[in-house]
Amino acid sequence: MKRIAILTGGGDAPGLNAVIRAAVKIAINEYGCEVIGVRHGYDGFIEPDGLMVLDIASVRGILQRGGTILGAANRGNPFARKTIRDGEEIVEDVSDQCVAAIEKLKLDAVIVVGGDGTLKIGRELYAKGVPIVGVPKTIDNDVAGTEVTFGFDTALNIAMEALDRLHTTAESHHRVMILELMGRDAGFIALHAGVAGGADIILIPEIPFRYEKICEKVQERISSGSKFSMVAVSEGAQPEGGQQVFARGGDEVFVARLGGIGQAVGKFVESACGAETRVTVLGHIQRGGTPTAFDRWLATRYGGGAVRLAAEGRFGRMVALQDAKVIDVGLDEVLAQPKRVDVEGDAIRTARGLGISFGD
Amino acid sequence: MKRIAILTGGGDAPGLNAVIRAAVKIAINEYGCEVIGVRHGYDGFIEPDGLMVLDIASVRGILQRGGTILGAANRGNPFARKTIRDGEEIVEDVSDQCVAAIEKLKLDAVIVVGGDGTLKIGRELYAKGVPIVGVPKTIDNDVAGTEVTFGFDTALNIAMEALDRLHTTAESHHRVMILELMGRDAGFIALHAGVAGGADIILIPEIPFRYEKICEKVQERISSGSKFSMVAVSEGAQPEGGQQVFARGGDEVFVARLGGIGQAVGKFVESACGAETRVTVLGHIQRGGTPTAFDRWLATRYGGGAVRLAAEGRFGRMVALQDAKVIDVGLDEVLAQPKRVDVEGDAIRTARGLGISFGD
Amino acid sequence: MKRIAILTGGGDAPGLNAVIRAAVKIAINEYGCEVIGVRHGYDGFIEPDGLMVLDIASVRGILQRGGTILGAANRGNPFARKTIRDGEEIVEDVSDQCVAAIEKLKLDAVIVVGGDGTLKIGRELYAKGVPIVGVPKTIDNDVAGTEVTFGFDTALNIAMEALDRLHTTAESHHRVMILELMGRDAGFIALHAGVAGGADIILIPEIPFRYEKICEKVQERISSGSKFSMVAVSEGAQPEGGQQVFARGGDEVFVARLGGIGQAVGKFVESACGAETRVTVLGHIQRGGTPTAFDRWLATRYGGGAVRLAAEGRFGRMVALQDAKVIDVGLDEVLAQPKRVDVEGDAIRTARGLGISFGD
Amino acid sequence: MKRIAILTGGGDAPGLNAVIRAAVKIAINEYGCEVIGVRHGYDGFIEPDGLMVLDIASVRGILQRGGTILGAANRGNPFARKTIRDGEEIVEDVSDQCVAAIEKLKLDAVIVVGGDGTLKIGRELYAKGVPIVGVPKTIDNDVAGTEVTFGFDTALNIAMEALDRLHTTAESHHRVMILELMGRDAGFIALHAGVAGGADIILIPEIPFRYEKICEKVQERISSGSKFSMVAVSEGAQPEGGQQVFARGGDEVFVARLGGIGQAVGKFVESACGAETRVTVLGHIQRGGTPTAFDRWLATRYGGGAVRLAAEGRFGRMVALQDAKVIDVGLDEVLAQPKRVDVEGDAIRTARGLGISFGD
Repeated sequence: MKRIAILTGGGDAPGLNAVIRAAVKIAINEYGCEVIGVRHGYDGFIEPDGLMVLDIASVRGILQRGGTILGAANRGNPFARKTIRDGEEIVEDVSDQCVAAIEKLKLDAVIVVGGDGTLKIGRELYAKGVPIVGVPKTIDNDVAGTEVTFGFDTALNIAMEALDRLHTTAESHHRVMILELMGRDAGFIALHAGVAGGADIILIPEIPFRYEKICEKVQERISSGSKFSMVAVSEGAQPEGGQQVFARGGDEVFVARLGGIGQAVGKFVESACGAETRVTVLGHIQRGGTPTAFDRWLATRYGGGAVRLAAEGRFGRMVALQDAKVIDVGLDEVLAQPKRVDVEGDAIRTARGLGISFGD
Repeated sequence: MKRIAILTGGGDAPGLNAVIRAAVKIAINEYGCEVIGVRHGYDGFIEPDGLMVLDIASVRGILQRGGTILGAANRGNPFARKTIRDGEEIVEDVSDQCVAAIEKLKLDAVIVVGGDGTLKIGRELYAKGVPIVGVPKTIDNDVAGTEVTFGFDTALNIAMEALDRLHTTAESHHRVMILELMGRDAGFIALHAGVAGGADIILIPEIPFRYEKICEKVQERISSGSKFSMVAVSEGAQPEGGQQVFARGGDEVFVARLGGIGQAVGKFVESACGAETRVTVLGHIQRGGTPTAFDRWLATRYGGGAVRLAAEGRFGRMVALQDAKVIDVGLDEVLAQPKRVDVEGDAIRTARGLGISFGD
Repeated sequence: MKRIAILTGGGDAPGLNAVIRAAVKIAINEYGCEVIGVRHGYDGFIEPDGLMVLDIASVRGILQRGGTILGAANRGNPFARKTIRDGEEIVEDVSDQCVAAIEKLKLDAVIVVGGDGTLKIGRELYAKGVPIVGVPKTIDNDVAGTEVTFGFDTALNIAMEALDRLHTTAESHHRVMILELMGRDAGFIALHAGVAGGADIILIPEIPFRYEKICEKVQERISSGSKFSMVAVSEGAQPEGGQQVFARGGDEVFVARLGGIGQAVGKFVESACGAETRVTVLGHIQRGGTPTAFDRWLATRYGGGAVRLAAEGRFGRMVALQDAKVIDVGLDEVLAQPKRVDVEGDAIRTARGLGISFGD
Repeated sequence: MKRIAILTGGGDAPGLNAVIRAAVKIAINEYGCEVIGVRHGYDGFIEPDGLMVLDIASVRGILQRGGTILGAANRGNPFARKTIRDGEEIVEDVSDQCVAAIEKLKLDAVIVVGGDGTLKIGRELYAKGVPIVGVPKTIDNDVAGTEVTFGFDTALNIAMEALDRLHTTAESHHRVMILELMGRDAGFIALHAGVAGGADIILIPEIPFRYEKICEKVQERISSGSKFSMVAVSEGAQPEGGQQVFARGGDEVFVARLGGIGQAVGKFVESACGAETRVTVLGHIQRGGTPTAFDRWLATRYGGGAVRLAAEGRFGRMVALQDAKVIDVGLDEVLAQPKRVDVEGDAIRTARGLGISFGD
């Protein structure tokens, strides 16, 4: 193995730099291999200024830092690349150009660090003969084939600390505090952070909720002397059947959707449950900044694991965590179906046992 | 001094419990005095279950905790108390009832911990003969007569940590990150956290901004190679003259105000500056949770200082911080005018010198 | 299942309260079961004031708190209980008395939360007919049969943050910074935190080190332009063959062991490597305070899992984590051999690939 | 003003980089001035490779980072510079060489950032005609003439968080927890962090303590039902008259001084008070890592203030904080006497009122 490349794709996740650093150090120290950094995702292969040599000095001091020194994709997908020509957006398949560029570089392996989207492109390039090795990245924990990946633990801790802070005010000021968290399709962040942060109600995409159930829980708590409630909501949580109206006594309350789902739930609770409510939208704070110990550790092991997969010629595969060990799985298997919260599983059962309502 | 009371009013601020703890311990240990806790602000004097005895055991373990063990006001102002009678909201002056209750308790002093609103009521009760001692509380730092008060430092650190996290993503993903912070009338949180967190643009209520100036700064940075910008916005920041339209070339871009000002700025930047933008609204996370060392220290000294003011019979006054010492000032002086960011002062000048734009 | 008991034994670990809270809530909410809290470990069964009823209210607000509301053992082991009689220490087997007390309480299960020591006693009581269910607790991560247990993640993050802080000073002031971490027999904390915190040298009990190898690494780094080094040391790390003397040129440098191993390494580095050195001993800071999201989540699931094991009558077993699921394993299997760092495993190999020296 | 230089001296303090960044940005943006960075303290003037140009790019991304990009002194004092010649250490006055180098650089000002030692050298150089402007730096808060300086607030928060973590273990495991903190001559860190972290006993250099008084407090707490105690000790705390022996009943207990004073107090408490004790020495963790909001804010304002002092030709003076404003004071006044805890002041009185023992 003489020369490998590494790229990062998609949204930010704490630990990307730790993967890059470990891959570079281990490729150089263990294999005496040259490492090329590809900037802005797959774009780097076909754009000017898209490549940089990564030596030991270039990865110094980045372990602790969020973001990625390689940048992320602008237009991203070489199979459907968007460009503006004569004022119009054009979508082109430039994958052959990309493959040609890779061949010209005489790369023994291309390590792609990314979520479902980035890994899918990787699989298609692999089908075209590119020696792809994948590293899963998702703060949402929605990549299959691995117990967990880096970024998720950092996001959880940030979300939990937010809940902790909201908790004391909720309690002394008798408020319903709503915290909207990331998770468009998978509710892992809201579920784990909600349980860890003592939420009373957790709304996730996997379990459609009914607005009136939220009210029931808030009022059940008030009746039992707890004049406050904590609500963790995934950004992708949805009312059952797109519920827009809530009936109370003879009245109907229309549930407007202003801003995100957090705002919608907030407006509903304030108007229909008669409880003072505050909404916080954590947004990108969950994606940035220094990674936790677990995320640095896992990202580092993934970086090393990816280089070894490359050295062993096991392409079209992805590093994964299983039973505290770094293993590898085929990209086909990983991409067959995304990971979602198991609504019948032990975690949800435990949460329900704690008295948490999922609004269903 | 045989018996004093203490109450907390208004929104939450980290350090309230530290004030209560110090006041109780010092009143008992130094003066052998009984302490009555008044629950839910001034309401506690006239509502059932509104009073509790505070002994040493009752304040154990609360130094580290956000919120207030006394709770905050529900309807608050005894001079204009809102109640629902026969389905209608009625506003009554129940201050005499409140004064009578205080007299019946034979209190040597009433320590009121709160912001402008709570302190104003305190001054009015003082005019009616109640032996009031004030303790300033505001996370916004908008109470005059004191260098600073508790809660502000905690809020700043939370806001700055959010900026730190957003920073790394902004940088690697070429984003404009907008963070909406508390501060309806005073921009201290956005100013201090913005400077401490490396913001490029800070929008505060004291300096009306122009939307196009934000664009100018974002594009100036892009031109100089920094393809990202960090924006800290006070919730009370306002465009000059209520500016709703931004002219660009021959076009006009309408600036809708959806959600708060953070959202408005975000939508503008995305549409008019052509930069990918993300908005975070920190909300009540700034008000809750464990206080910083400075806030615990100051709140503790305020609690002790208030008891001593009471013991010396210096009523109608408020504890304050000046030159690292706890002093006291008259409530009249404090309430004469609220504190605002000095737009000609050294802090703003330093911020401008750093290259920060205030959108003016 | 009508009545169960729960106790915590041994040293502190962040998450103990989360286990208790989950067990109590789930036993009551799901099984309608009464829960008895046993204070001060097994001692609570035979001492006055040793039992308390745990209802929902009694576990309110403890999720976020370090420590254990049940306290830990004073004299601990009922099979070898130490008491002072007539000025002399006596060791007695009071296990029958303990068993009798448990029988009298008509307990359907006894949940014991603890490390190797506490679990061993549990197994012996189980052999005497007590319906024991175990929950592993160790910040050192040295309990077998489970991927990991609660407390370890919190310890890692505290240790890593310490390394992060030491790092910047080391770098700008050209220092060798030594951080002594917990881990008497197992080096997991130093290994994981060291990798996550960018340590250059990691010394663990599983790999005997040679003093001169430390010097070699420090000087190799100086030669390559890095005038500082970061060292993470397990408290149980040992020089090879009890090495007391280090030969340099014609001289011999005697390595005194003052204070812990951290101090010894520090004195050696300062005298023999000619590098300014600072030593920090983190101590019990690693064991206390609020748990991380992972530890709260795992502890909560363990609490729920233990109650279910009890309900299913699966005694003499312990809850464990495997492939992100809570499973259970027999105490015999768990206690057969303690968990240690696999010195031939992938984690150590990755660390070596990064250039980290283990002093061997 | 065409060209200024800046140097940092002495131990690390969070905020050094923020001072450098602000000074560089404001000198360039406001005054169009060139800035020279002097490396390794005053040494940089006379050593090869000792100077670097600081432009805007060179200070990018350092606001959040601990340490100093300029490094700190190796041998430091040009009035008494230590060198090794022919195997022997020689002390020389090279101040004239230093002054000559400064003159040759045609500097309009030299900004020196440091504690008492660095500022004293600055004053001596000023007496020789060098246009010195000082910026106070001390995590111990022992520089006179200013309310506070940067670094102290960060140190306090780190120390307080350590106390918070130790607290929960102390409480549930009935321990005496001793935390040794920085402060050789001034006890501000132990005093402020101790009060903020709920310490029961605080030992500082300004108040000589008696060992038996520690025991009294620990036992008074046990008697009143609090079976644990928290002790914050300055590294420079001293027993009264160098007390080495503690008399109890007919016995004498010899107090060995092994390790620091924290260890000595720990050994005493364990042997003489019969309480299980644990000692933590925080060490350099207090000096490094990312600064708090206050420290970044103050350091930034100091950087700007120093440049303005330079522009106004106000040499031989130091920036300072008074009543939340940046002012300036003469170095003579600053260095006339160091700042110490006022043992008769309001802060100590408040601490005593809380029930805290100072061992006197």
